[in-house]
Amino acid sequence: MASDILVNYRDKAFTLLQGDADKILKLIKVQMDNLTMPQCPLYEEVLDTQMFGLSREIDFAVRLGLIPEHEGKALLDTLERELSALHEASLRK
Amino acid sequence: MASDILVNYRDKAFTLLQGDADKILKLIKVQMDNLTMPQCPLYEEVLDTQMFGLSREIDFAVRLGLIPEHEGKALLDTLERELSALHEASLRK
Repeated sequence: MASDILVNYRDKAFTLLQGDADKILKLIKVQMDNLTMPQCPLYEEVLDTQMFGLSREIDFAVRLGLIPEHEGKALLDTLERELSALHEASLRK
Repeated sequence: MASDILVNYRDKAFTLLQGDADKILKLIKVQMDNLTMPQCPLYEEVLDTQMFGLSREIDFAVRLGLIPEHEGKALLDTLERELSALHEASLRK
């Protein structure tokens, strides 16, 4: 029972963070499809703000002991790779 | 045992958030004592960024079910009141 609750919080924290990362990716996809201006300063600002918000959530989950530090870092790294692939694809259009 | 873990995560989440709010207050105090320029755009930007970061942490803790929504809101409201009092005091100097 005790470990059920522990696992439950950990799972929930990871699911929430993964969901937030997906939201950023979708937001940027929509921006790229509609604005086609990845070099726009507003785009950069939105992305920076969202990445900062997510990194604060991840950091908080790590400090709480719900997510191991390397997992939080991997989540951010993956998102950055996906965003960068998206960015490159839009430049080739 | 199960409820011990639950209480432990809740306490820890609240302590972390309260600590982060205190850090923002201290940061702004130092800025005001040393820069004496609360109308400076950089000051506003630092404050906005920090408040946004904290609000994302609080929102995450609420979504995890570790903090009731009203408690998260109260924490932010209190910090905003303290910052505003600090701001007014610096204008009277």
